[in-house]
Amino acid sequence: MTRRDFINSTSASYASLLAWGMLPSAPASAMNLPANGRTSEGKGRKVVILGAGLAGMATAYELGKLGYDCTVLEARSRSGGRVWTIRGGTKETEMNGGTDQTCRFEDGLYFNGGAARIPHHHQLTLQYCRELNVPLEIFNGNNEAAYLYNDGGTGDFANRRLRIKEYHNDMRGYTSELLAKALDQSALDQQLTKEDIEKLVDFLKNEGDLNTNHLYKGTNRRGYKAKNEPGAGTAPGEVTDPYGLTDLLRSGFMQPVFYNVGDYIYEQQTTLMQPVGGMDAIPRAFEKKLTGKILFNAPVTELRKTENGVRVVYQKGGKPQELTAEFCVCTLPLPMLKNLESDLSGTVKRAADFVPYIKTGKIGLQFKRRFWEEDDWIYGGISRTNMDINQIWYPSFGFQGKKGVLIGYYNFYSRAEAIGAMPVAEREKLALTQGSKIHPQYPSEFENSFSLAWHRVPYSGGGWATYDDATRRKYYPALLEPDDNIYFAGEHTTYLTAWMAGALTSARRAVEAIHARVGEYTKK
Amino acid sequence: MTRRDFINSTSASYASLLAWGMLPSAPASAMNLPANGRTSEGKGRKVVILGAGLAGMATAYELGKLGYDCTVLEARSRSGGRVWTIRGGTKETEMNGGTDQTCRFEDGLYFNGGAARIPHHHQLTLQYCRELNVPLEIFNGNNEAAYLYNDGGTGDFANRRLRIKEYHNDMRGYTSELLAKALDQSALDQQLTKEDIEKLVDFLKNEGDLNTNHLYKGTNRRGYKAKNEPGAGTAPGEVTDPYGLTDLLRSGFMQPVFYNVGDYIYEQQTTLMQPVGGMDAIPRAFEKKLTGKILFNAPVTELRKTENGVRVVYQKGGKPQELTAEFCVCTLPLPMLKNLESDLSGTVKRAADFVPYIKTGKIGLQFKRRFWEEDDWIYGGISRTNMDINQIWYPSFGFQGKKGVLIGYYNFYSRAEAIGAMPVAEREKLALTQGSKIHPQYPSEFENSFSLAWHRVPYSGGGWATYDDATRRKYYPALLEPDDNIYFAGEHTTYLTAWMAGALTSARRAVEAIHARVGEYTKK
Repeated sequence: MTRRDFINSTSASYASLLAWGMLPSAPASAMNLPANGRTSEGKGRKVVILGAGLAGMATAYELGKLGYDCTVLEARSRSGGRVWTIRGGTKETEMNGGTDQTCRFEDGLYFNGGAARIPHHHQLTLQYCRELNVPLEIFNGNNEAAYLYNDGGTGDFANRRLRIKEYHNDMRGYTSELLAKALDQSALDQQLTKEDIEKLVDFLKNEGDLNTNHLYKGTNRRGYKAKNEPGAGTAPGEVTDPYGLTDLLRSGFMQPVFYNVGDYIYEQQTTLMQPVGGMDAIPRAFEKKLTGKILFNAPVTELRKTENGVRVVYQKGGKPQELTAEFCVCTLPLPMLKNLESDLSGTVKRAADFVPYIKTGKIGLQFKRRFWEEDDWIYGGISRTNMDINQIWYPSFGFQGKKGVLIGYYNFYSRAEAIGAMPVAEREKLALTQGSKIHPQYPSEFENSFSLAWHRVPYSGGGWATYDDATRRKYYPALLEPDDNIYFAGEHTTYLTAWMAGALTSARRAVEAIHARVGEYTKK
Repeated sequence: MTRRDFINSTSASYASLLAWGMLPSAPASAMNLPANGRTSEGKGRKVVILGAGLAGMATAYELGKLGYDCTVLEARSRSGGRVWTIRGGTKETEMNGGTDQTCRFEDGLYFNGGAARIPHHHQLTLQYCRELNVPLEIFNGNNEAAYLYNDGGTGDFANRRLRIKEYHNDMRGYTSELLAKALDQSALDQQLTKEDIEKLVDFLKNEGDLNTNHLYKGTNRRGYKAKNEPGAGTAPGEVTDPYGLTDLLRSGFMQPVFYNVGDYIYEQQTTLMQPVGGMDAIPRAFEKKLTGKILFNAPVTELRKTENGVRVVYQKGGKPQELTAEFCVCTLPLPMLKNLESDLSGTVKRAADFVPYIKTGKIGLQFKRRFWEEDDWIYGGISRTNMDINQIWYPSFGFQGKKGVLIGYYNFYSRAEAIGAMPVAEREKLALTQGSKIHPQYPSEFENSFSLAWHRVPYSGGGWATYDDATRRKYYPALLEPDDNIYFAGEHTTYLTAWMAGALTSARRAVEAIHARVGEYTKK
């Protein structure tokens, strides 16, 4: 039986197709570790977990299933760590002399200050949403109607916004035209047969929407003229004119900041998801499963090795408290671990010192009208600019509501550092001034804001771990092995840095490692 | 003051920017016709409206605002016409000996049998959703994780599904490589300067994700190997290998049926929307505003001109009834108008006879598990195939729920005619047999189905009007003018055929025309 015969047979079972490699890996499912022949070998064994972010809570949740006695120490009064939804009443004071902020968004309005999207292939995140009953909706990452805005620069495109769909379709059109021309001239015929070239030219005609002479002359894919959309009666609509290729090439939109990576790169391809009502629905769902196991407002100050395990000192009500356990799972972000008094090994301490974390910031802006929807036809998605604000994110929920909150900047590295160093009032002013160039409705519609600079957020101290080949080689391995009875988890212990899926998969990895070790003990 | 200075000034008002042509047209808004100086000139004037689809109901709603006394005659027991959501309990018997069908979907499951998406630029549809408080969510039209499946054919791609993202990224990669090569060889240098060529090559490197030698060797944009996604610890993930260009060109995927028009064509570009809970939320919202004005189960049998207006004969409780009015707005689809006894002019009758309507069908399939999400990571979007089923639509709601309904075929013309001619049990069998080639989980997960062939659906008789240049020239104009006191509305009287926005804009056009005429009267 050939592969083709096989797949043609509609009676092929799921399992057999899997065996033939014709299906993706089995669906992510609830973690269900075998107890090595005993149901209770985790029972009563004490584990202290540092941090009630996703990594810490997933660890406690999974170890709990196996009977371990877990305590999670959390410095903040909330769970979730860098999974944090900002809404009316949210309070924060950043480190290094930050202003006290209290969010004044209206009921039902919010933005996700940290993690904000779930790729469709992050099956572990999706699995936990399923397991914990977190309802999801689509996060609209790629919106052809959003804008590109090149501030400064020269030429017709300077200081002018254009729709992503205009840029996309023009570039597709011209590049298809050029390649079709090169193929027509047989410039490339050493590589392809005549028939294949014809097929490729046909493809390019569709790809670029070329005319019968293989020329790109614009097309309704890029939109209609204002007030001249197709309509009733005698209104067929009037198509807009394309920009010129040379103009586009000199427009500045080839810079990486404008490059619409979202359509293409793996993590941002459609489909992306978000929990209904805010990303913190995920940590809140974990928290519900861990009643009584999380100590809040309990920052860890010391992490010590003992003969039989670990001893942790933390503050509670202004007083030092102690907790001993057989194992520790430490999920603290490295910028926090760096400053912790500990018996950690030199290699771990060096990783904490030298793995860089990204500086990044966001501001949520509340407007009294959703002008981006009403005036600009933008429902979710991202506008891009070379200004300091970098990106504007439009909310993928509450469509056509009265008011709305958009993310007025989302930036990284030196820009985030510069803006993060400003008082919150100045950040707001910058977001409004620059954003007004893209949306002139800003000044008349703005109501209030809430901003954050993750590198200044207490107990986080950065956006996420950013490895390159050298740091991955030099420091990463130390975080993968237990340091005596101390295990490490968190996005920084994965190849999914920055993502919730990283935190979650790292938790399962730590749980597996501890449980395997306990299994070895109990076999002895 | 230059344009640039102007737009740089953040104090620029919305109105002044509009005047400079820097903003799209003003937001769509509630219709608010001036009453030509009198507030009550519509008052008491009788209008009979044929059909309680969107065109008919919007006409009654807007005329009602102006004081007209409207009665809507609707042949069915429901409003909405071709805006129809199929859920448990939906009953239908198609014309020409159709089987009685009663839908057995579980509570909360449904599919939109007719209109199913709202483009972001269909501002009139969005305006009515706003005005009538219909909450919206995103319709995920373009999903890079959905499949292409080429049935039959030859080569490696025959009878094998691949992810749209694989095809997209491979074709982008190879065409970018080829064009970069042609540019490197200066094959095109008569058109572009050296600097522009360099910029274009830079663009192509990003567009196709080419390596430093400008070659496409595959990239993680197209995905990771099964069970080898990036993960925790020592799992960086393993990228899949690209298909060969020649193989792709010969794969059959250049055929129009596979061409992923959704990314590109204007009506299907992101963002698309849908009402929460089903498209019939829109007709139900109109219906609420028209209490007592719609006569259901009242099929029209005669449309007559009188000295002062119109006389309409309709059936009610098996008996003919009559209704006279000053004006009639006829929104019947042309296949229905064709068979109506009437005094309509010859040009209108010829339009009804000769404007073709598309044959089209859909089937909703209920499965006991959302395997497309759990196993295949597909959350909304469309798979495409050259089989008779043509497309599979995955629901953009109820993500991660227990059961789900997908649309097992959506096809047109001869395929829709052939499948529509089958008994419903055979349609179901065909959808399952062909769909199983893409989703081998079908046989074990299937529960029940509901299918429809719009050309056989009573009181519709077709999908939508399909004009070409000749029919637009020859027949369309007759539908734009009143035939004495009879006005025409419906998607067939617009350049937005097939779309709800067409029905709605046609309604406003009819209202404007009647009200202008009444204004002329009252001035006399």
